[in-house]
Amino acid sequence: MDRTYTRDMKEHIDEEIGCAGWVHRVRNLGKVTFILLRDRTGIAQTVWDDPPELSLESVIRITGRVVKNEKAPGGLELQGKSLQILSSAAPDLPVPINQDPDRLNIDALLDNRMLTLRIPKIRSIFYLQSHILNYFAEYLRSRDFTEIKSSKLIGSGSEGGTGLFEVEYFDRKVYLAQSPQLYKQAMVANGMERVFEIGAAYRAEKHETPRHLNEYISLDIEMGFIESDHELMDLELGVLSHIFTKIRENNSDILAEWGTDVPTEEQMAGTPRISHDEAKRILSERLGKRVFELNPEGERELCDWAGETAGVEAVFVHSFPRKKRPFYTYPLDRKTMSFDLLFRGIEITSGSRRIHDYDMLVENIKRFGLDPEQMKDYLTVFRYGCPPHGGFAIGLERLTQKILGLANIKEASLFPRDRKRISP
Amino acid sequence: MDRTYTRDMKEHIDEEIGCAGWVHRVRNLGKVTFILLRDRTGIAQTVWDDPPELSLESVIRITGRVVKNEKAPGGLELQGKSLQILSSAAPDLPVPINQDPDRLNIDALLDNRMLTLRIPKIRSIFYLQSHILNYFAEYLRSRDFTEIKSSKLIGSGSEGGTGLFEVEYFDRKVYLAQSPQLYKQAMVANGMERVFEIGAAYRAEKHETPRHLNEYISLDIEMGFIESDHELMDLELGVLSHIFTKIRENNSDILAEWGTDVPTEEQMAGTPRISHDEAKRILSERLGKRVFELNPEGERELCDWAGETAGVEAVFVHSFPRKKRPFYTYPLDRKTMSFDLLFRGIEITSGSRRIHDYDMLVENIKRFGLDPEQMKDYLTVFRYGCPPHGGFAIGLERLTQKILGLANIKEASLFPRDRKRISP
Repeated sequence: MDRTYTRDMKEHIDEEIGCAGWVHRVRNLGKVTFILLRDRTGIAQTVWDDPPELSLESVIRITGRVVKNEKAPGGLELQGKSLQILSSAAPDLPVPINQDPDRLNIDALLDNRMLTLRIPKIRSIFYLQSHILNYFAEYLRSRDFTEIKSSKLIGSGSEGGTGLFEVEYFDRKVYLAQSPQLYKQAMVANGMERVFEIGAAYRAEKHETPRHLNEYISLDIEMGFIESDHELMDLELGVLSHIFTKIRENNSDILAEWGTDVPTEEQMAGTPRISHDEAKRILSERLGKRVFELNPEGERELCDWAGETAGVEAVFVHSFPRKKRPFYTYPLDRKTMSFDLLFRGIEITSGSRRIHDYDMLVENIKRFGLDPEQMKDYLTVFRYGCPPHGGFAIGLERLTQKILGLANIKEASLFPRDRKRISP
Repeated sequence: MDRTYTRDMKEHIDEEIGCAGWVHRVRNLGKVTFILLRDRTGIAQTVWDDPPELSLESVIRITGRVVKNEKAPGGLELQGKSLQILSSAAPDLPVPINQDPDRLNIDALLDNRMLTLRIPKIRSIFYLQSHILNYFAEYLRSRDFTEIKSSKLIGSGSEGGTGLFEVEYFDRKVYLAQSPQLYKQAMVANGMERVFEIGAAYRAEKHETPRHLNEYISLDIEMGFIESDHELMDLELGVLSHIFTKIRENNSDILAEWGTDVPTEEQMAGTPRISHDEAKRILSERLGKRVFELNPEGERELCDWAGETAGVEAVFVHSFPRKKRPFYTYPLDRKTMSFDLLFRGIEITSGSRRIHDYDMLVENIKRFGLDPEQMKDYLTVFRYGCPPHGGFAIGLERLTQKILGLANIKEASLFPRDRKRISP
């Protein structure tokens, strides 16, 4: 099919071209009719003397001449010559596609997901997400990381066994993986040394908040031969700075559509690193009350503090107490070599150096009330030589949400899953 | 940690460097001891006067001087100065890491997966897979495709409801998706027009063959505004030629290790396209018996035929009968606009133009004995304007298997899942 995209019309002034797309809007002015044609590159004004009856969202193929018209959006319009209907839409569209989606509440947005994704501003969220996936992988590949794909069906829980979805697997029960933790550690120990994985993660938690999903995409990283969790924070700054710089360079149209911006590399480099104890002290001071843990209010407040003092709404909190982190976290005195990254008010990353010593790991598994016998596969990794290592994970939807300033994380998932929502 | 990779030793002749890695082999010659040090870039010979007792696979950090030695592999060795054990391996290694893995049968390979992945030749399978993922996405992005991530938890089966794994999702049952079919079609209809997805797919089939996995990675593509399935075959040739060309350029070491090669772009361009009827005719002739369907024997035989007549062991079989393809396949007389790609003896792709017309789709759903009421979300996509479109999927593990000539597809999955195997 000979086809010109609407964004390329400017290269065909006074020429006849063919276009195809969706009927975005129809305005009948009596003498002439304007049909706004939407394709994946934009929207074009087309003018007709006597077009056929067209329902909104029908898919059409047209030919016509491109002419300059100062009054048309972009200064160009297409004078229609032929029009063919490829797919006629039913006239009872349940949600408007050609209006500002801010009018739709979260339920209208998600209940009609098969249609609201047609709204250009909504769709732009997922163009951005596609770019983020690319920039993430591109940076890690340039640093010699290997992409892995691990199984999401596991025989037992990797972090203690709560919050798991059960799967009927032939004649037995297995679980959906909460994270590729075991597998990414195994691949470091197996000699890949530096790995990343982009994959689904599952949490069977009954939360109903704007910051949780029961199925999400985890951007996982693990690397060997580190000595401190600060090397991981350095790597994360590198990853995020690369993503932000590329977005600024290539996707400023999406940032503009959402009225937002991303931090510069210089700003990211200034991200404060504070211990969990310091974080509590800062919060106690700012909130005027004793603070014992980092809750959502505290995360927002710490990002405000970082914005005011360091010029970037991002802060690493490290040295969490041992009982606040999983059993595989490397201890340092009564604390751990672990960190969260808070960004624009929310935790988008959890990371740590891991225990690589077999005996230390067995001891810690017991200390956490878990059974080393149940973790035999996992322990094999450490029994036969494992380098010091660590890693972290970034939630793709949280990162997308925070870049664009979306109110609810579900807006950053194409087909979100929550306690009630399992379709479309 | 100041560290030089073994592959970079040649840039440090007569210098003192630090290296780190796994103890691959130890040879005590009385006066001196050779320790082969393995890191992710290769293996280096290091020489010691009086090293500590070391178990194989222990992780060590060493310093020493790089010197030329004609007898050493690569013409270089490292004269050891200091040695630190970072992780001491247990001495009862259940499988050999430093021997040819061809001696291990498939069960030994998979039962000890946490260790056999250390074998450099085994690990190279997954370096290649990482590159394939990159080349696949790179080609599609260059052609303006958008990467999507769709949910793997679905309310009902997309292709009729058999072969699904059931998941306990809070107070209800859902299923693991067999493919992102519905979602990739939806995203084309929603205006992205060209999408791809790299994601897990699940088949609850009780097969136990060298060509099936119950969980695999599907490389999915869907594009709008096509008129014929031949446009999809053209696209697939583009994708595969790009992957093969890049492998040849950048990963010839892995091909050499497995003693294999990939077709050239010219060879791929000559891939025959034959109808299902022609395929049966060719098979009947070659096998000397009436052939009624394409079974594994037929797939192998057709690839042999293509190799002999077209110089490439690849062949598109198109125009499958209607009842051999899913309900959403676009009909063409009594056949369909559908195809398989056979490569080196096995089907690695299934694709088709899809029905985009609402009424035609409803009719076909009924014809297949399915219930349109149960497919309301799916049908919404077509009810409100959907362009002509189609797509296909490539199985990542089958592609990897066939490139390297692996006997069993499970060798091409890091942590394969089959009827009996759910760990590690």
